[in-house]
Amino acid sequence: MGADSNRGRGSNTPAGELPRHIPLGSGGEFDAIRTLLDRWGKNAHRIGDDGALLDARESPNVVVSIDTSVENVHFRREWLNPEEIGYRAAAAALSDLAAMGATPLGMLVALTIPDSWRGALDAIGDGIGEAASSCNAPILGGDLSRGTELSLTFSVIGTAQHPLSRSLARPGDLVYMTGSVGGSLLALRDLQAGRQPDPAARRRFAHPVPRLAEAAWLARAGASAAVDVSDGLVADLGHLAAASGVAIRVHIERLSVVHGISAIDACRSGEEYELVVTTPRELDTREFQRVFGLDLTCIGTVTEGDAIVRTFLDGGEVEPPTGYLHFTPES
Amino acid sequence: MGADSNRGRGSNTPAGELPRHIPLGSGGEFDAIRTLLDRWGKNAHRIGDDGALLDARESPNVVVSIDTSVENVHFRREWLNPEEIGYRAAAAALSDLAAMGATPLGMLVALTIPDSWRGALDAIGDGIGEAASSCNAPILGGDLSRGTELSLTFSVIGTAQHPLSRSLARPGDLVYMTGSVGGSLLALRDLQAGRQPDPAARRRFAHPVPRLAEAAWLARAGASAAVDVSDGLVADLGHLAAASGVAIRVHIERLSVVHGISAIDACRSGEEYELVVTTPRELDTREFQRVFGLDLTCIGTVTEGDAIVRTFLDGGEVEPPTGYLHFTPES
Repeated sequence: MGADSNRGRGSNTPAGELPRHIPLGSGGEFDAIRTLLDRWGKNAHRIGDDGALLDARESPNVVVSIDTSVENVHFRREWLNPEEIGYRAAAAALSDLAAMGATPLGMLVALTIPDSWRGALDAIGDGIGEAASSCNAPILGGDLSRGTELSLTFSVIGTAQHPLSRSLARPGDLVYMTGSVGGSLLALRDLQAGRQPDPAARRRFAHPVPRLAEAAWLARAGASAAVDVSDGLVADLGHLAAASGVAIRVHIERLSVVHGISAIDACRSGEEYELVVTTPRELDTREFQRVFGLDLTCIGTVTEGDAIVRTFLDGGEVEPPTGYLHFTPES
Repeated sequence: MGADSNRGRGSNTPAGELPRHIPLGSGGEFDAIRTLLDRWGKNAHRIGDDGALLDARESPNVVVSIDTSVENVHFRREWLNPEEIGYRAAAAALSDLAAMGATPLGMLVALTIPDSWRGALDAIGDGIGEAASSCNAPILGGDLSRGTELSLTFSVIGTAQHPLSRSLARPGDLVYMTGSVGGSLLALRDLQAGRQPDPAARRRFAHPVPRLAEAAWLARAGASAAVDVSDGLVADLGHLAAASGVAIRVHIERLSVVHGISAIDACRSGEEYELVVTTPRELDTREFQRVFGLDLTCIGTVTEGDAIVRTFLDGGEVEPPTGYLHFTPES
């Protein structure tokens, strides 16, 4: 892990402009780390110390989160290649920063690698490096352990000018969702049935995109509460409703849904990593589409009520389509 | 995970004084988390959002680190009770903050729990809570996964008024070590041989104490480089020598060593979590002992040279006792 110091002993670089690599000590356990660092190149910063030193002077609202992906719990080896496994686990963690309206400062990576995965470590690292690069979230440190089960834990660190929270939805707010949902579940159904998914759906499953820039735009535009779609749209809105102590009404026919799945099922599709926000004012969805090339759709409203999501389809109320429909070992 | 926002919608609390608990949404997966939160009480802060929001205004040098403990790699079930497993894994991670001279802001906890450990989760949580309480490092968020292997990953976040680094040792510096070493290896030898260790040695192994307040004292007193003893004193000094591009001379007879182990072997004892620092000026070891009730011993010097540790015993140079002697599955 990594940092120089800003005390300037021998070096006059301030904390924010540190030498990128500090030599590691000797020892076989470090060879794998050295290889990863070489592959990560400029996507790894401040590696080599017991911790990484960050300068939060310009934006002192620091946001931190942690997320783990475990083989056979969060993914199966036969469904994803090693790059995708690395990318997807990192992207899932970075999506939590988006849900907080935060911009990444970087991430810490803890990998547990069984012997059977040892040959895939570089490719897993490449996927992590891709997430670091595409999200501007440098790898600040890590921990590499042996084990019997492949496990990837990411701790993400960011700063938020306008922090979002699940607890800030208020009656009268509008509810907006970025992008479209359903692709992840559509791919999962095919994968579980042993079929090759449609490429677009597979990409939604294998290569989700954390909505980081979109989150910053939404926070600036007045969004106050937010959650990312990880357990399924209605389930995640349930978390938001519970945290805010409000009721949320969702009009399912308004949802942007991928081709090939019903809107009801799309409400239960997990690991989508789209954002849902609430806001007291109407948002300029056309401007959002222009900037990001992505839908922003008003899908409902916040009302008085107690921690409940009510779903409507073509004017009639329907049973909320909850249920954790991303991959579990039993499914 | 957790945070309210500092935008004050409905609440006027600034980011640093947030409501402690935000209700979680419904769902069976949250029951275990709720139970842990109840047990942690005031040791858990800002839980319930996608990330935790911290205010770094007063000390913008933010330090982050990550550390994983895996069953049968870092510990064995028959050697430690569940509280000790939780405490020890958290303490190991917090020790990285000490090595950086940082004061904890808190920690994130990612647990992977096999079914066979499910009944021990509350006790593991209690051990984590003890570390949080004793180190003033509240639990800011977490992630709970199923899996086949017990794994505990901690991401620790702190701030440093005077950050320490492995890379800041300079020729002419003195080398100091806190406390004594050898107890962890002494206990490990007995445990591996199926013997009950001496209680004091067992406590060093099962209940290491991160030297957080000591690190802050040492940083204020002028220490510049530091490392915590996790791989063994000489191995860790090797990392420091490599990062600083210096040679380090250690006088083994000066070491404070627990009763029952040779000073040479004590140099190879890992997971001690004592601190080693370098400093250009002499430190007041008597004052340190008065404040902390703990030895602070000058054990060597920094000289010109290339990333090497040279060890001396009673005036003669000896082969550096390196080698990773904490528990590995092969050992």
